[in-house]
Order: sequence, then C-alpha cells, then structure tokens
Amino acid sequence: MQFQLTTDFIATIEQLIANKDGHALRELLKEYHFADVAELLEELNSDEATYLIKLLKSKITSEALMELDEDLRERILENLTPTEIAQELEELDTDDAADIIAELDDKTQKEVIDKIIDEEHAADIVELLNYDEDTAGALMAKELVQVKETWTVAGCVREMRRQAENVTRVHSIYVTNREGKLTGRLSLKDLLTASEKTKISEIFIPKVDYVTVHTDNEEVARIMQKYDLEAIPVVDENGVLVGRITIDDIVDFIKEEAEKDYQMAAGISQDVEADDSIIALTRARLPWLFLGLLGGVGAAAIMGGFEEVLNNHAILLLFTPLIAAMAGNVGVQSSAIIVQGLANDDVKGSIGNRLIKEMLLAALNGAALATVLFFFIWGWKGTIDYGLSISVSLFVVIIVAGIIGTFIPLFLHKRGIDPAIATGPFITTSNDIFGILIYLYIAKLILGI
Amino acid sequence: MQFQLTTDFIATIEQLIANKDGHALRELLKEYHFADVAELLEELNSDEATYLIKLLKSKITSEALMELDEDLRERILENLTPTEIAQELEELDTDDAADIIAELDDKTQKEVIDKIIDEEHAADIVELLNYDEDTAGALMAKELVQVKETWTVAGCVREMRRQAENVTRVHSIYVTNREGKLTGRLSLKDLLTASEKTKISEIFIPKVDYVTVHTDNEEVARIMQKYDLEAIPVVDENGVLVGRITIDDIVDFIKEEAEKDYQMAAGISQDVEADDSIIALTRARLPWLFLGLLGGVGAAAIMGGFEEVLNNHAILLLFTPLIAAMAGNVGVQSSAIIVQGLANDDVKGSIGNRLIKEMLLAALNGAALATVLFFFIWGWKGTIDYGLSISVSLFVVIIVAGIIGTFIPLFLHKRGIDPAIATGPFITTSNDIFGILIYLYIAKLILGI
Repeated sequence: MQFQLTTDFIATIEQLIANKDGHALRELLKEYHFADVAELLEELNSDEATYLIKLLKSKITSEALMELDEDLRERILENLTPTEIAQELEELDTDDAADIIAELDDKTQKEVIDKIIDEEHAADIVELLNYDEDTAGALMAKELVQVKETWTVAGCVREMRRQAENVTRVHSIYVTNREGKLTGRLSLKDLLTASEKTKISEIFIPKVDYVTVHTDNEEVARIMQKYDLEAIPVVDENGVLVGRITIDDIVDFIKEEAEKDYQMAAGISQDVEADDSIIALTRARLPWLFLGLLGGVGAAAIMGGFEEVLNNHAILLLFTPLIAAMAGNVGVQSSAIIVQGLANDDVKGSIGNRLIKEMLLAALNGAALATVLFFFIWGWKGTIDYGLSISVSLFVVIIVAGIIGTFIPLFLHKRGIDPAIATGPFITTSNDIFGILIYLYIAKLILGI
Repeated sequence: MQFQLTTDFIATIEQLIANKDGHALRELLKEYHFADVAELLEELNSDEATYLIKLLKSKITSEALMELDEDLRERILENLTPTEIAQELEELDTDDAADIIAELDDKTQKEVIDKIIDEEHAADIVELLNYDEDTAGALMAKELVQVKETWTVAGCVREMRRQAENVTRVHSIYVTNREGKLTGRLSLKDLLTASEKTKISEIFIPKVDYVTVHTDNEEVARIMQKYDLEAIPVVDENGVLVGRITIDDIVDFIKEEAEKDYQMAAGISQDVEADDSIIALTRARLPWLFLGLLGGVGAAAIMGGFEEVLNNHAILLLFTPLIAAMAGNVGVQSSAIIVQGLANDDVKGSIGNRLIKEMLLAALNGAALATVLFFFIWGWKGTIDYGLSISVSLFVVIIVAGIIGTFIPLFLHKRGIDPAIATGPFITTSNDIFGILIYLYIAKLILGI
C-alpha cells in the first residue's frame, strides 16, 4: 500500500509506451489501484496518457480519469471517440459520469450518451445533468439500495443482492412506500437480527435525515457534518427518493471551500493551482495586484497632500511603510478570525459586541507595540516629540484597522456577500490608505504643525 | 430536519431550567438530535448546560458533549462527578471517550476509568490513551466488525449480529487469521450472495488498505482521501488488527489543517477562534505583529540610510508604501500557491523550474503594473525620469518578490518545516524590506544620484 512513483518507474512506462508494448504494460499495471494509475497519468504527456487509457481496462481507467486534473482529462477525452468515452462512463457511478459528461461540448455529450449501452444508466446521467450546479441534485448519485415497506426480510435480502450489484458501497438501506416516497431507513443490524418473515414495516426506522434536489451544496455539507452522516438520501419535490450523496463528495467540497477562503485571503481568485498555465495564473492574480497598485497610488496622493509637513519633518516619511504594514497585518488578522468563524457558523451575538471586543484587543496589542516603537525612536533619534507622535499614531491606527477588519466581513455577510473577499488585498489596501491618513493627521496634531 | 434554534425556544428552556421542571424539559427535548442539543447547550451558561446534561439520557448527552466547544465541555465536566462522567463515556465509542478523558487531569482520569462498568470498554479506552497524539493509534476506535477466515458464512452472520451491537455503523467487515492478523476484507455483497456453508476463506478479498498505530494522522488523511476510503483498519507492529479509523474523524482533521494554513497566512498562531478570550487572541496575534513592527523599523532604518537621495527627491518617498505593499502582495500570492500545492501533494518537478515559471509570471504581471504606474506618474508629475525609475523598480521588485515567495516555502518544505509559516507576516515583512531596498537602489541608479 505504500505506493511510491519513482522516476525509474515512469521512465520504464514511457519506454514501454514508445515501444507500443501493450502486453507488458498491462502486466505491469494490472495490480495497481486506480488512484495510483491516476498519479502515473499525471506524469505522462497527454498522448502517452491517452495510449494507456485506451489500453487498460475501463474499470480502472474510468476511476483514474475522475482523479485527474481537469486540464489533462480534457486533453485525453479529446483523443477518445464517443464510443470509447461511453465505455469509461459505463463503469462509473452516475454522479461521476455526469461530472465528466458535463465537461464535454453539447454535440459530443449527445454522441457519448447515445453510445452508452446500459439505457437506465444513460437515462440517470441525463437526469443528473438537468439539475442546477451547486445543488444536491447535481451532487447526488442514482445508485442506492432501496427497499419497500411492504417487503419481508427474506424478500428484502433477495432484492438487496440484486441492487447491490450496482452500488459500490452500501451506506444505508432506504425504505420507501408504494409511491416511492422516502419513509425511513433500515439498519443492517436490525436486518441481520430479524427473522426471515418479518415485514420491513415492522423493523424500519421511520426517522431519516434527507435533503431535496434543490438544496444548496453548502447546506448539504453543513447538515452532513453537523449530524455526522456518511450518506444522505435526496428526494424530489414530491418526497420521492431519487438519489443519495455520500461523504466523499462532501469531503472534496469542504476542502475546496476552505482552500477558496485561503486563496482569497492571499489575493488569488479561486480555482487555480501551482501547475496551471501562466495565463490562467495571471488572470487569477493580476486583478488583485491592480487593486494594490491603486491603493499605493492613493497612498502616494495622500502623502503628496501633506507636502509641507513632510518637507520639514522627513523622519515621519521613514515610518509610513511601518504604519501601512501594521494596519494591513492587524486588518488581515481580525478579518481572518471573523471569516473563519462565519464559515464555521460560530460567530454569535451582536456586531456591536464584536467590535467592542476587537477594540479592546487592538488597544492591548497596540499599546504594547506603540511602547516598543516609542523607545526605539527615542533611542534612535533622541527626540521625544517624534517618538510620541509616531507611536500614538500607531496605537490609533491599530485600533481603527482592527475595527475595519472586523466590521467589513460582518457587514458583507449580513448583505449576503461572501465575507472571504474582505480578507487579503481588499482589507490590506484600504487599511494602508486609512492608516497613512490617520498617521499623518495625528502626527500633525501632536507636532503642532 | 430543518432545526432552527430561536431565541424564544432558548428562553423557554432557560425558564424551565430555572423552575427545575425536569419533566417538561425531558418531554420537550426527547425527540432532538444530539447535534441540536449541542447547539442548544452552547447557548446556555455552564450551570444551565450542566443541569441539562445531568437530566437527559446519556445516550443523547454523551454525543452532544463531543460536539461542544472544548472550553464549555471542560466547565461542564468540572461540575460532574466521576460516576456521572463515566456514565457519559459508557455511551460513546472508544475513540470519542478517549478524547474526552484525555482532557481531564490525571487524578480524575483514574477515578472516571474506575467507574466505567463495562470493563472491556474501559480497557480499550486506556489502550487508546497510550498512543502518541497525532498518530493513527490515538485517532482510531476499537469498535469494528471482525470475522475469522475459518468461519462459515452462517457463523459469520451470527457473530456479526453480536459484534454489530457495539458498532454504530458497519463500514467494512475485516477478516483476520488465527493470530488475529489482518488478512483481508469481506464485501457485504459477497456475504449476502454466498451460501450459508461457504467458508469465509473462499470469498474474502485478500487485498486491504491499512495503516499501523504509528502512522501519522496526516498520512492517514492522505491515504483515505487518495483511495476514497470511508474507513481504514489499523494494525499493530505485528500486523494484528487493533482498531479502525472512519472518515468523519478525518473530515475534522482535513478541515482543521486547511484552517490552520489559512490562519498562519493571516498571521495568527493556530487554534484560536473568534469566541476565545482577549488574552488567548493576543497570544496568538501579538508575536506576528512584533515581527511586522521589526520589519517596519528595518525599513525605516534602510530609508534613513538613503537620506541624501530622499532629501533631494522627496517624491520617491511617496511611493515607498506602494512598493512595499506590492512586494508583500506578490509574495503572499506566490507562497500561497506553493503552500496549497504542497499540502495537496501536487507540486512536482524541480525547484529550478518552479522559479523560472514564477519569474515569467511575475515579469508578465510586473510589466503590466509598471506600465500603468509609469503613465500615472508621468501624468501627475510631468517628468519621465521619476516615472521611469519608480516603475522600473516596481517591475524588478515584483520579480524578486515572486521568487522569494516561491523559494522560501519550497526551501522550508525540503527542510521538513511546515511551509505555511512562510506565508503571511513572514513573507510580507521580508518582502517589504527587500522591496524598499531594491527600490531605492534602482531609483538611485536611474536618476544618477
């Protein structure tokens, strides 16, 4: 199980592909897990990868395709015929198959679906494609184990054997009534302990968590996490059981959400990776840098407006980067705590209380930092005036930065806007400008200029 | 299932607790899910919460206790007797029980364990407490369904009924040999389809992923995610099956890891929440702010060294915050991409190639930003000299910042240090200083001072 992809191994594979030695490749790779095959494919160029996909069994390659980076998958799929793509999809659960089909253009989608032999599978995939993205309908799979209230335990086990053929893992056994409406679930334990002739209606648990096809992904993730569910059934508008969502799909979603917040905080529009093209990375990064440039130009303009002060007290200028940096740091800290708290749904109480707490916190930190700075400037320049004006400014700037950093995400959240956008460049830039403005005003005041 | 905690409901509960109306409270809350009870407890003060914990059935309250914030749980546990705590633990899976016990002081731990009636349960908890934190041993639970190779299907089903009593969910059926060593797993499907007299040795799957008690949590999470596992068996040094880890424990771990990176990037030492005390928050935030202060003082000292330049070309000073901010932004972007890539294990290839790519990217972004800045300064001040020197500096600073932002996390990672520490204040501060230094040198060069 300790699979390690060595450069030697990759070289061997590449050589075998160059020799078109299909037999040796099949032998070499037959014991490999699809996730390991996927890791291997990522190291090959798209022609080599395509060759392997065509060569190996769809049972392995279909799952490996799912694991690939979207770009590579797209390049491989372009080299496959609709029939070949259909063969891969045939092996996948409906939710995964629908995800792959959704990446194809409309014409190819139709062609591929026509080539899927299992008609029920094809119909299921088409159904999934019709749901809105970001809803439970688009996230669910059609594969599940479903028994009727009216069945006996013996009949139920018989039917489960049949259904289990299509289901990779039996998470839960869902119980429905005559009209197919979800009425409860059956515990495996109860099924194993009941006598063969017992009716399901006598032993099933009539309480079951569920979501509808229109439930938002975020809400699905929240419910599954809160109630520690490993699978949740999905019903349509009429309460009819139509699919189920498993925890592994939610794990990916949770991870992506956490990463998105992090990327936003770093000034990167979501969904880029280290291996993306320079153009894609530029598109994700440049807009935020422009915002930063704008802020810097704004700061320069503000400082330009204090020309007299600066000409006669040039020392003040030496500390503008410090003030700006501290305003930015404090703002990012405050906003990150709020953004994370909001994401985890544990920011409670009024905005007013939050702001008072942040103000006290900032005052405490600010006092410590300002004191240190005061003694430093005093030691360096030997004048109390400058030390006092700069460190008092720092103190005020830190408090204001903390308040802005707390208020903006809370405000955005109230307005229904993703507060994560407030961390990072946005808050740094606005705090830079506010910081410098406050700094110069206070210095002017204290120095009596 | 759409549980909403209203202030009215909380007020009702508080009133009933004040009246010590245990009967009404039990009636009102008996249908509630433990996760909802936990949400309610979070809204009460610790005396009220303790009252409810003592009042309601341990079956519900034990699980609710697990969901609580650590601080609140600690305050509640302080008000419970060892016997009462033992009653709660009796209802929990061993992994959760061990987590709670680990939070108690040594003396209370002993007392509580003595009061646990189920001796096997107590012994299991003690075993779990002995494993190192952050290893599979400390993460696993002892509850699992285990069958012997030598059994028949009929015997297996009989035995499973017995074992299933203690297992909340049957994830996988693990197969062991005479010595208890893990030899494979059994699919429920195969069990359902095989005849009663079939030997397990004929139908079990001899291939199974596993980890040892010493495997690092991070590695467990990586394996479970990579291979899409919902549970993984844990073996000891001799290959004997001793426990299993389920995906819900890993979900929490994955989430915490992603949040930790985010907090580090924001300059917050891990593990604080919006609701923590001001002292705890200060401890997490102040050290990073001191680092920023140090950086700012360094920047001031550097600028002080260019006094002549600055006296005669004061306009240069107006743009130092811009230069520092841009260096910081670019550095944070580059490092965030690398840190996230390393966390997801998809940063491959040599450091050299990464640096070249980042350099090209930074050059592209830098050229665009520098051009805009040039025209802005030209328009504002009407001189080409300043515009040229400031924007050329910006271009160079952006490239250097990108390289530093890429190199530092890669370097730390190679050294076995968590690269997340490199994002945020650390990289911003060093980039501020480098940026300003480069800026002033280049300006001096171009202006020929």
